[in-house]
Amino acid sequence: MPEERRSRLTPEDRRTQLLALGVNFLADHPLEELSLDELARRAGVSRALLFHYFASKQGMHLAVVTAARDSLLRATAPRAHLPPRERIDDTLRRFAAFVRDHSGTFVSLVRGTASGDPTVRALVDESREINAEHLWEAFAELGVTDTRTVRLALRAWVSFAEEMFVSLASGDLADDEQLVAFLVRTLDAAVAVARDSTL
Amino acid sequence: MPEERRSRLTPEDRRTQLLALGVNFLADHPLEELSLDELARRAGVSRALLFHYFASKQGMHLAVVTAARDSLLRATAPRAHLPPRERIDDTLRRFAAFVRDHSGTFVSLVRGTASGDPTVRALVDESREINAEHLWEAFAELGVTDTRTVRLALRAWVSFAEEMFVSLASGDLADDEQLVAFLVRTLDAAVAVARDSTL
Repeated sequence: MPEERRSRLTPEDRRTQLLALGVNFLADHPLEELSLDELARRAGVSRALLFHYFASKQGMHLAVVTAARDSLLRATAPRAHLPPRERIDDTLRRFAAFVRDHSGTFVSLVRGTASGDPTVRALVDESREINAEHLWEAFAELGVTDTRTVRLALRAWVSFAEEMFVSLASGDLADDEQLVAFLVRTLDAAVAVARDSTL
Repeated sequence: MPEERRSRLTPEDRRTQLLALGVNFLADHPLEELSLDELARRAGVSRALLFHYFASKQGMHLAVVTAARDSLLRATAPRAHLPPRERIDDTLRRFAAFVRDHSGTFVSLVRGTASGDPTVRALVDESREINAEHLWEAFAELGVTDTRTVRLALRAWVSFAEEMFVSLASGDLADDEQLVAFLVRTLDAAVAVARDSTL
């Protein structure tokens, strides 16, 4: 019966299911513990089938990290219709909610991913760039001039925020609204210093 | 003749020499590319000798990362005799100088180290904690009250600064003094927000 149900999945659905299991695994384990054997066991499929989908352990890791990262990016994509200030608040609020709901996966992503594989690390670095770019767009709408110093400050502040979100993921922080307010104030302060500096 | 010179090294000196070669390797390569074979080749010794010193590739990686991290910590240890403000400036200035002189090693440490090995990552996280603790001591001397929010902000700011130092390592920044001034202002701003917030 389960066999029968499995065989009805399209290749696309099967791949999605395998990736979901991989992302779930990251909730409690670092990426480096995710072997093809482990994922095959969890999915109840053969190792050969995983090879068919991902070609190698590295290919599977890349696909799982991409899926985890993309779900974070989707969950925290800025809502374009909001004015810039509200958009930043709203994005940070949804970021906090994602971190609360997927704390293990979030920490695996920003800490664990790691993995020793530069391609995997580049995926995570890329999401920092994307977040910094979104912030930049909002500040441009607020009239902030485009300088390299402001861009560097925004990228560095994304790392600041990530560290605060890791604290949130560890259960160290009680209130999302207070965290969001704190983050926005530090963000504004960093931008104010950057507008007044030339690096 | 080189054989003879080699044989005169004490075990302690030999270990130091091997670690220096490993740290040097990080200047141009990520840690994961440092195999026992590669280090043996560079040192002109046998793989068996490396096993004797480090027991395994993982043991060698741990020892090399510890050596690299400790040289950064030594080079940037706060000078206790300076008053807190000067101490922070001086530490950041020496941090910038270290990053300029050892840019590859620095980036390997904070980015690459990584390595997929949680023990290795913990070493690098620990150095962030140490830096945050040093900052905390300086701000305590300046009369800042010990709150969890201030501590969290300092830890997050260390990640902010690290990101700026990665930009410095990539050759993106011309002037160390301007960077130090920028960092101090963002640090003060983060502490000011934290003093006025409760997380």
